[in-house]
Amino acid sequence: MTSANGLICFTNCLLPQEDGSLVEKDLWIDEQRGIILDSQKTFYVNKERPARIIDLGGNILSPGLIDMQINGAYGFDFSVYENDEAYQRGVQMVAERIVETGVTSLLPTVITQEKSIYPKLLGLLKPFSTPTSATFLGWHAEGPFIELTKRGAHAPAYLLPATDGFKAFEEVYGAVNLTEGEDWIMSRDSNPAVRMITAAPEVPGVMNALEESVKRGIIFSIGHSVASTDVATSAIQHGARLITHLFNAMPQLHHRDPSIIGLLGASPHLASPIPISVHLPCNLLEMLPLELPGVASPVFELSSPSPNRKELSWSGINTPKTPSKHQSRPSLHLEKGQIADMSFERPFYGIIVDGIHCHPNSVRLAYSSHPDGCILITDAMKILDPHLKDGVHEWRDGKRFIKEGERLYLEGTTTLAGSVVTLDKCVRNFSMFTGCSLGEAIKCATYNPAKCLGIENKKGTLRPQAHADFTVFDRQGVVLATWVRGKEVWTRSI
Amino acid sequence: MTSANGLICFTNCLLPQEDGSLVEKDLWIDEQRGIILDSQKTFYVNKERPARIIDLGGNILSPGLIDMQINGAYGFDFSVYENDEAYQRGVQMVAERIVETGVTSLLPTVITQEKSIYPKLLGLLKPFSTPTSATFLGWHAEGPFIELTKRGAHAPAYLLPATDGFKAFEEVYGAVNLTEGEDWIMSRDSNPAVRMITAAPEVPGVMNALEESVKRGIIFSIGHSVASTDVATSAIQHGARLITHLFNAMPQLHHRDPSIIGLLGASPHLASPIPISVHLPCNLLEMLPLELPGVASPVFELSSPSPNRKELSWSGINTPKTPSKHQSRPSLHLEKGQIADMSFERPFYGIIVDGIHCHPNSVRLAYSSHPDGCILITDAMKILDPHLKDGVHEWRDGKRFIKEGERLYLEGTTTLAGSVVTLDKCVRNFSMFTGCSLGEAIKCATYNPAKCLGIENKKGTLRPQAHADFTVFDRQGVVLATWVRGKEVWTRSI
Repeated sequence: MTSANGLICFTNCLLPQEDGSLVEKDLWIDEQRGIILDSQKTFYVNKERPARIIDLGGNILSPGLIDMQINGAYGFDFSVYENDEAYQRGVQMVAERIVETGVTSLLPTVITQEKSIYPKLLGLLKPFSTPTSATFLGWHAEGPFIELTKRGAHAPAYLLPATDGFKAFEEVYGAVNLTEGEDWIMSRDSNPAVRMITAAPEVPGVMNALEESVKRGIIFSIGHSVASTDVATSAIQHGARLITHLFNAMPQLHHRDPSIIGLLGASPHLASPIPISVHLPCNLLEMLPLELPGVASPVFELSSPSPNRKELSWSGINTPKTPSKHQSRPSLHLEKGQIADMSFERPFYGIIVDGIHCHPNSVRLAYSSHPDGCILITDAMKILDPHLKDGVHEWRDGKRFIKEGERLYLEGTTTLAGSVVTLDKCVRNFSMFTGCSLGEAIKCATYNPAKCLGIENKKGTLRPQAHADFTVFDRQGVVLATWVRGKEVWTRSI
Repeated sequence: MTSANGLICFTNCLLPQEDGSLVEKDLWIDEQRGIILDSQKTFYVNKERPARIIDLGGNILSPGLIDMQINGAYGFDFSVYENDEAYQRGVQMVAERIVETGVTSLLPTVITQEKSIYPKLLGLLKPFSTPTSATFLGWHAEGPFIELTKRGAHAPAYLLPATDGFKAFEEVYGAVNLTEGEDWIMSRDSNPAVRMITAAPEVPGVMNALEESVKRGIIFSIGHSVASTDVATSAIQHGARLITHLFNAMPQLHHRDPSIIGLLGASPHLASPIPISVHLPCNLLEMLPLELPGVASPVFELSSPSPNRKELSWSGINTPKTPSKHQSRPSLHLEKGQIADMSFERPFYGIIVDGIHCHPNSVRLAYSSHPDGCILITDAMKILDPHLKDGVHEWRDGKRFIKEGERLYLEGTTTLAGSVVTLDKCVRNFSMFTGCSLGEAIKCATYNPAKCLGIENKKGTLRPQAHADFTVFDRQGVVLATWVRGKEVWTRSI
């Protein structure tokens, strides 16, 4: 049903907020433009009336779920290339079917390949969507620059060092796929395919490549790594922003060298010099040098990691601060009274909440220590299909999987190889494991991944002007319907 | 200087609150009775005037620090018995000198001994204080019921199973020292010596002994253990309340079996049945049976673990709850509108914040995941003495320590053997490592340990009627003065 003026008002629903709360409120969208409207302005100022009112019966109207790590689904594997046509058909099929799990955006993972395969995949995994499908946000390259001993299901023969730094990245992924793109979410043609790279910062050359990747707007994620605390911390300081499937394919938390997992507790106030970055409105930059309470002899540096972003960073010795009532984070008091956060920024982390890859207690430990960094991922294999039966299934290179419920092993081993959990199930599990509300769990599959990717104005949010991608949940977290760009593309049959 | 009516008013000071904040407020005490007064009542209602006003110059008037784990200090080792007189002299010396570190209450640790030594120590470590010394709160028995592979500096030959359950505890520690005592903090004669036991719940018989210990009001702490998640969880369900020196002498956090450390993230909402305890005012007990939202078919049981304490517990299947705005914890809505917390209670945990036993990131990870459970301990050895030089020092049984700064090794090994850090230094370190305020760090060395011990009406607090034990800190966390029961017993010389 299309409405005359294209305005739809959702009513009698709970809207997940960016703080994890659920608020009873109407939401207006423009169905033709596929965007969310400012309800206040549309209704009260412009006095518009909706052509269509949808009563959601008290259910939850969530931003569409975003899966940042998924290897395939419905029998199609993003890491298997036969020919262009079959690959494109596979991608489209996944995009169209995955909406039944509430997912409206995803970042397909390509795991470690033989070097010559990469060029073939390049053009095929650019941002992509159809009017009735989920949006492909570009490609997540997991490997080949990873640590041999933490390779998981990656083929050891294809792992590589990055001895030449960023050049090695360009050689493997293709220079054209690593170019800088603004507003990449909107346009297919002008954009790079590689949105995110998982690599081990201790692998030779990776730390150098990291900085250049970040400058080009690519998300660098630490994973399949044995990085020590020092190396992992340095990676964050160089711009790494995420941890790939936390807990899996990395060292256990050792209390004296807590390594990658320990970044969730990375201390902002250590006595050793820590470079700290702060984002300031540009007009504040004239005010240098600034007084930094709690930092002795700061050295300032102004950089421009991308055209639309300026960064002011400094290093200095942090000194213990004076106490005040709610000072869990230090703040930088600027001369004109503005306040900018100067905390060392802890990374986001993807976590597989299938109840198998991580024990519920580990999930809660991570979440409660760093809630704003938590991103639910499926890491699902091609076998993902809510209706598929248990048993032995083909993977690739002649290897096979065994599926037992939501457990998935490489045949003949006890190695967990990705998962078959759906993202909506992760949301329900997460609420149950951590005791958080459904709204807080939804945040970890919508707003948090969008923020990590820097697209929180368009996806993972209900802000005006954002894309009208929705997942309708009942109050138990079951998906009832999915909307893409203002159209309902899937409903649960009753 | 003694005041005429015995009333002292501290003014121009910051008072640490039980929520970790610091509030600018006066505090009144009755110097003769050694207790804190209700300022409102004393000043406004009774119209009393203080005989003495003390201006603290904007510094912090904290409850006196409580050290729940300390092996000795100033050359005296609580685990070395020569004769009664020497032992008593040693205990008194420590009690009198330790106040310079801001500590006004402590729980001396006796580590694993040859069985025949225990009876000799029994009478000597009962609650103890002098008008100018810190208070000994009774004895912490660490061992001998611990795991061989996690023994640390404990003598392997003396480790024991507890095959007979609580009888084995009685045989080692002495039945008379394990009797139930009410208001044990106040009176020496009628009270048991053993306040706290560290044991490994997987050691044969310990789980049985645990329940009986808890019934007698003894704090059971999990430590020197390789307990799996299931065993550790079961120990908490049986009444264990604390984890001994978190991270040390226990398995690393494995994400699929996070073991003891994982208890910090113990999930309240697992689908498997979890017995949950709730403390209710007695007059609510008539209201049974109650409706428990989120718990299917609850079974109730009323118990009385100690004369002044009643517990209502139930078991049932937790069901996912419906979402609401700030529902990070479920609550039990009682019929008359009262609300009781029904969360699975995560244990307290002692943590050595010397920068050596645990990496700062590990400290912050633990604290941010479970702030209310955090207890700063020194685990200090007899070598603790803020003025002692580095080098080789005698321990006991002919063994020797090497002290290098705040590092302490068994000679000829790399085994860390306790620490030499003072508790006031831990407070400063903790604020620096975690980024919390000084008030929040103080809470972890005052209110949290008092709450764990069940003495938060008397110690670790500034509540009216509590003991007038204080540590005066400057705003950098340096101890300026220490008060015990209304008297200043130590001041920093300038």
